[in-house]
Amino acid sequence: MPEFSPAFREQLQDLFRWRRDVRHFRRDPLPEPVLDGLLRTACLAPSVGLSEPWRFVRVDDPHRRAAVREDFARCNARALSDRAGTDAQRYARLKLAGLDDAPHHIAVLSHPEPTQGRGLGRGTMPQTTTWSTVMAIHTFWLAATASGIGVGWVSIIDPERIRAVLDMDPTLELVAYLCVGYPAQPASTPELERRGWERRAPERREWIRR
Amino acid sequence: MPEFSPAFREQLQDLFRWRRDVRHFRRDPLPEPVLDGLLRTACLAPSVGLSEPWRFVRVDDPHRRAAVREDFARCNARALSDRAGTDAQRYARLKLAGLDDAPHHIAVLSHPEPTQGRGLGRGTMPQTTTWSTVMAIHTFWLAATASGIGVGWVSIIDPERIRAVLDMDPTLELVAYLCVGYPAQPASTPELERRGWERRAPERREWIRR
Repeated sequence: MPEFSPAFREQLQDLFRWRRDVRHFRRDPLPEPVLDGLLRTACLAPSVGLSEPWRFVRVDDPHRRAAVREDFARCNARALSDRAGTDAQRYARLKLAGLDDAPHHIAVLSHPEPTQGRGLGRGTMPQTTTWSTVMAIHTFWLAATASGIGVGWVSIIDPERIRAVLDMDPTLELVAYLCVGYPAQPASTPELERRGWERRAPERREWIRR
Repeated sequence: MPEFSPAFREQLQDLFRWRRDVRHFRRDPLPEPVLDGLLRTACLAPSVGLSEPWRFVRVDDPHRRAAVREDFARCNARALSDRAGTDAQRYARLKLAGLDDAPHHIAVLSHPEPTQGRGLGRGTMPQTTTWSTVMAIHTFWLAATASGIGVGWVSIIDPERIRAVLDMDPTLELVAYLCVGYPAQPASTPELERRGWERRAPERREWIRR
């Protein structure tokens, strides 16, 4: 096993600290080999029973992209209309997706009952399959950040509609719709914190004891 | 933003490659400051709306630990009885948890409807809350691996029963029960692959195009 040095661990900490949900992108595309490399790295993620339930989809078709943007606009308008007063004003000021500028759109779906892995480890906790896909997305995100590439996870969408827009098998579950590209404004603090939406809770950094 | 060097990226790739689900542990405990540091690092994980829904629980009480082991044994026996022939024989040969030897047991729960984050980003995809906790677990796992520490995620348990054993708020969802300690046998290949249970699928490393 390789020995990881204190210097590496310090940089890894930096990576976790600077890994942001990016909503502001430059429009220039990434080299294709770089994107391919990120996908291969994502596939090193843990998966229950070694089931690799993830499906990574490059969305390049302009009509499909436009349909995704429309769905986001509709869902975001609804989310805003559910809020009132200062809360609504603050929400309206946030930029919550980089769908217009990000050069790459990547949808990530998950097979809910994969034959790969032969069911191991998911009998009592079948959600661990979807969670494996979440860890593949997180691996992609960290590897991208280490290459100076930004990722934004758009969740203000109707997952069923997006799956239909992408014409993917209805048995697959949409887990994430990612915007990917060079970030316009790197930052070590979450945008939601910088804009006064929410702060980290120090009590999360303490153990609960049992 | 820090520039990550090609050397760092290569080591990061090693980290992803050597991050294993560990089932064989040495019994010596980790220094407490190391465990505390891993928890603080885990809290750098992304979370929807900056909601930080994770709750990390150190399980030290021997009675609770014994109850968890019993539950695993029961669930694993049931998983075995659902299999037949060669499949059952192969399953029976696998070691699927390091609960006996691992010096530390850590349960990770998730608040399904946190007030922190004020609901942002989870309106149409409420599962993103649980998925945030999954990314905190994955962050913990990677940071541990970088420190030569092994993590094993036990999912062959009844999550409701474990939550009760730990006497945690019934509104919380049990996401993972982790074994943590120094690994007895580091390896770059998943144990399930080494033991012929399953292999990685090369087609996962290709984009689906839309």
